[in-house]
Amino acid sequence: MRSHLKGIGASAGIAIAKAFRLVEPDLQVTKQRIGNRDAEEQRLRQAISRAKKEIEEITDYVNRELGADKAEILAAQTLVLNDPELLNPVFERIRTEGINAEFALKESADHFISMLEALESEYMRERAKDIRDVTKRVIAHLLGLSITDPGLISEEVVIIAEDLAPSDTARLNRRYVKGFTTDIGGRTSHSAIMARTLEIPAVVGTKQATSTIEHGTVVIVDGLEGEVIIDPSPETIAQYEAKKAQYETQKAEWAKLVHEPTVTKDGLHVELAANIGAPVDVNSVLENGGEAIGLYRTEFLYMGKDRLPTEEEQFVAYKAVLEKMQGKPVVIRTLDIGGDKELPYLELPKEMNPFLGFRAIRLCLDRQDIFRVQLRALLRGSIYGNLRIMFPMIATLDEFRVARDLLVEEKEKLQKEGYEVSDKIQLGIMVEIPSTALMADQFAKEIDFFSIGTNDLIQYTMAADRMNEQVSYLYQPYNPAILRLVKNVIDAAHANGKWVGMCGEMAGDPMAIPLLLGLGLDEFSMSATSILPARSQISMLSASEMKELANQALQLGTTEEVIELVKSGS
Amino acid sequence: MRSHLKGIGASAGIAIAKAFRLVEPDLQVTKQRIGNRDAEEQRLRQAISRAKKEIEEITDYVNRELGADKAEILAAQTLVLNDPELLNPVFERIRTEGINAEFALKESADHFISMLEALESEYMRERAKDIRDVTKRVIAHLLGLSITDPGLISEEVVIIAEDLAPSDTARLNRRYVKGFTTDIGGRTSHSAIMARTLEIPAVVGTKQATSTIEHGTVVIVDGLEGEVIIDPSPETIAQYEAKKAQYETQKAEWAKLVHEPTVTKDGLHVELAANIGAPVDVNSVLENGGEAIGLYRTEFLYMGKDRLPTEEEQFVAYKAVLEKMQGKPVVIRTLDIGGDKELPYLELPKEMNPFLGFRAIRLCLDRQDIFRVQLRALLRGSIYGNLRIMFPMIATLDEFRVARDLLVEEKEKLQKEGYEVSDKIQLGIMVEIPSTALMADQFAKEIDFFSIGTNDLIQYTMAADRMNEQVSYLYQPYNPAILRLVKNVIDAAHANGKWVGMCGEMAGDPMAIPLLLGLGLDEFSMSATSILPARSQISMLSASEMKELANQALQLGTTEEVIELVKSGS
Repeated sequence: MRSHLKGIGASAGIAIAKAFRLVEPDLQVTKQRIGNRDAEEQRLRQAISRAKKEIEEITDYVNRELGADKAEILAAQTLVLNDPELLNPVFERIRTEGINAEFALKESADHFISMLEALESEYMRERAKDIRDVTKRVIAHLLGLSITDPGLISEEVVIIAEDLAPSDTARLNRRYVKGFTTDIGGRTSHSAIMARTLEIPAVVGTKQATSTIEHGTVVIVDGLEGEVIIDPSPETIAQYEAKKAQYETQKAEWAKLVHEPTVTKDGLHVELAANIGAPVDVNSVLENGGEAIGLYRTEFLYMGKDRLPTEEEQFVAYKAVLEKMQGKPVVIRTLDIGGDKELPYLELPKEMNPFLGFRAIRLCLDRQDIFRVQLRALLRGSIYGNLRIMFPMIATLDEFRVARDLLVEEKEKLQKEGYEVSDKIQLGIMVEIPSTALMADQFAKEIDFFSIGTNDLIQYTMAADRMNEQVSYLYQPYNPAILRLVKNVIDAAHANGKWVGMCGEMAGDPMAIPLLLGLGLDEFSMSATSILPARSQISMLSASEMKELANQALQLGTTEEVIELVKSGS
Repeated sequence: MRSHLKGIGASAGIAIAKAFRLVEPDLQVTKQRIGNRDAEEQRLRQAISRAKKEIEEITDYVNRELGADKAEILAAQTLVLNDPELLNPVFERIRTEGINAEFALKESADHFISMLEALESEYMRERAKDIRDVTKRVIAHLLGLSITDPGLISEEVVIIAEDLAPSDTARLNRRYVKGFTTDIGGRTSHSAIMARTLEIPAVVGTKQATSTIEHGTVVIVDGLEGEVIIDPSPETIAQYEAKKAQYETQKAEWAKLVHEPTVTKDGLHVELAANIGAPVDVNSVLENGGEAIGLYRTEFLYMGKDRLPTEEEQFVAYKAVLEKMQGKPVVIRTLDIGGDKELPYLELPKEMNPFLGFRAIRLCLDRQDIFRVQLRALLRGSIYGNLRIMFPMIATLDEFRVARDLLVEEKEKLQKEGYEVSDKIQLGIMVEIPSTALMADQFAKEIDFFSIGTNDLIQYTMAADRMNEQVSYLYQPYNPAILRLVKNVIDAAHANGKWVGMCGEMAGDPMAIPLLLGLGLDEFSMSATSILPARSQISMLSASEMKELANQALQLGTTEEVIELVKSGS
């Protein structure tokens, strides 16, 4: 039946192929009495260890092919299988009640899943998915069934699924899997992130893909518009083939810009940098023509482990990134944990409003034992490239001064210990809290650079949780209030001879680029795959015209007015 | 033993009297099998109904003597005794396990209390206290014991307690109870609020009052400094008697200002208004010389009930306040629910960051059925006085426009229905979200007035939950970032011929008043008891000198520098 679904474009591009329904085997379990309790425990231990091994294999594959931060998504699953809170009650029930392992495991997992899902947090829902994904794998082993492995698909298809588990997405073979579409998920779900990394067109959150698309039907996945066309007419196919060819021509055009500088029509040079999560990501930055690393998130070093990373482990990672970038600037952000990012081994208190809580620099200034180790590793790495250190979540000048003093102290200690430390390290802060944006003139006297973190800055300025769907209409990057804060930061920095970057999602957004250029932003840091399109766009813009445009935008009242202005004027 | 405790001054003034330890009876319960299960259920029902009756009597007393919003604190306790989640398991266990009511109730209550306390939220901790307070009362009835009633104290004392339950504080007799001090609690705990209403000097959060102070020892409670002196020497007593006399002289001086206008040394008139929660609070406003109501919080109309208030109920309340104020301005804020303020019957979703969530105007624009009823009641009340309507939590111009249009619609409907509606209603918004403060120039063209809500504005601008102790160092009213936002709002309003008030705690703070005067604030709205001290303070300040002071403060870098400046310059 010809029809049409609307979803969220999670990964750009167009795919046309037959639908492959990724159907789950029947993993229904029933409660049974078992005879030998020791044997049942043993059976469960074996199934767990097999599942663990499978996940580790997939993790290794992903680490090699896609990078460490993508692998971390899977490493979190291994942790599930080491979680005594999940597993102890299962062994306990086998022992005391003499019931079968699959049933006891299913009940324990369901209990956790429903608890996590009740929390209405995207982060917790992803944790619930991890538990579901891993438990399924163990139960399949217990039942002697095997889970369909999407890695084995060997004809060109578009995958249709309710949702894709991280372990599934990671194994998709780009040669055969041309695209996918799911019932649930959003732009920032694991599977969407994976799709962008693999450059597989994807539309998520269609709500009814699995209920309307039959196995074998031809399907068009338009990741550019977030549309899925089911059983298209030959004319529609031809039309989308043309659209696909056009998109690919454009991609080829962009590829020519890899070794070019980023220059506006009227000759202004700006810097296009990339956000990364691990040393392996540098490859993609260089392939995509990144002029710098604008944000190296160090959280992944601390996640997916059961302890803090050592100074040596951190040093190795920082050195690797600095060396690979061969003297190009590398901004490394110190630990930004807390809020939606937890470290189980730190046992941070549960908070009523974690986004307004004890996180990032607030935590680091309190736990100086953790912070100093990172500062030492950074300082030791500094001689291997062009290091810039950045503190996250700075709200007051006092916080910056305390953090800076700790850095100076550790530098002096290292030098006394005989280490070499670079004298050219720039020191900057994230501007993601309104107070800091408002006080930029005072900060600008003491820092070397600012990097505006728009995700948080917007959330705090509008007082709207960016993860909460009920207030998502208030997540407004183009609200003139946000533009005014950005302008205030840039003007203050330039008046003091300092530079300003931006490392939130806004920096790579084609709609925002004209405005940011007009406001005078010096460095745009984005996901590596956005760099070439941005370079192409900037080459066609005039900085002086965009300045005019930005000044007009600053005088408007609403987001809608700004969007209209940009659409008509750039 | 002579010694000295430091705590939080929760209510101003000095008390010198013998310690009265408010000791709890032994309410230990043990698990017992009972014979007649029907009789046990009946015994529990009786105890609950007695406890309910007692709480209702206390509530009536408080409503009469102290006002409806104070009574709401107790009404919440009645709800506990109607809560099936708490009580059903108790009856269930009596029926199925045949155990005694007091034990089953204790276990069920403890379960809830520990769950609520684990949430690390001040609001939830207060809910846990309610359950503990009420359960104790029921258990006492079951055990045939009676809880010491502080209402029966008949000699002059200072009460020493671990904490005071709301029902205890409410019954304190001012004639005999000269002051109190507790181990736990903060400035915003129920007992602290009650102490200020009763004007009993109080120091809370001393941590060790009950462990160090013996019954009968003479104690000085210094609510001005937050200090407790145990077994003072005759010289110390004399010294504090003098301090007390001085404080009382000052209070008498203040009292002379009740019917005076508020004028600076150099002749500038500003308006001192009061924040209220219910019609009965107007008495205190008039007694304390309030020139207006700057904030009537309408939430109390919606709380402590199991349903929404009707249009008629609201109309009666609004009319009462407007009439009592006899033509003086009354700013009524529309429903500000959500965040830390819940309405059980609305069944709002649990949110990960309620302070950044679905609350106040966001909720009202979604639930127009609720909002329109309130607007109708306000419009109908408008002819009985000088009504000003204010929307809370406005983040964008769009939100304001939608809310305003609803008001216009309801006005037209009412007029068609034959109701009279005033044509002089001023319409304003709370400025408590950074985006709104930043966009004040645009808002100023469309509103009649702003009222700055500093509690939330500070929390969002600094990205620090004001209820979270771990980030409490970031709750900085004097941070120059906050002062700059306040200035931006005031300048934008004045450029458009509009006025600006402030209704957060900052408006009544003696340290903030010189700065706010200097920034040009038109209306200061505070708790009624702060009005006369503020009027006295302002009469000694020069507006032009304070303008100079404020301009200097705007150029400083940190909170500490601002505080130093104010201390030296005003």
